[in-house]
Amino acid sequence: MAELPIAPVGRIIKNAGAPRVSDDARDALAKVLEEKGESIASEAVKLAKHAGRKTVKASDIEMAVKAA
Amino acid sequence: MAELPIAPVGRIIKNAGAPRVSDDARDALAKVLEEKGESIASEAVKLAKHAGRKTVKASDIEMAVKAA
Repeated sequence: MAELPIAPVGRIIKNAGAPRVSDDARDALAKVLEEKGESIASEAVKLAKHAGRKTVKASDIEMAVKAA
Repeated sequence: MAELPIAPVGRIIKNAGAPRVSDDARDALAKVLEEKGESIASEAVKLAKHAGRKTVKASDIEMAVKAA
């Protein structure tokens, strides 16, 4: 499910010093970040459940980053 | 520089099966993805320059993902 908008991802590449950015580069980075986000989120949901919570908190995300 | 909007990142966590998501969890994941994006983008800019191009292409992003 594509959630991340493309334009902000393009700005991240611009901010990194790119004189020009191709459309497919924006799409490629958005896809990578989306997949990374899904992987971390999935782990964070498991960690929240493991802790007996329905709410995913920042501490779940932080622990998931180390695992994902 | 914070570029990624928070709401789509919150939806990524929701889509992963979270009944509820705290605001700080959204912020935390947005920060992680932003930093990951900056790291990949920075590497991709170097790879494009190395190839004698001003335009960052998808192939630069893909190669940078492996390095970053």
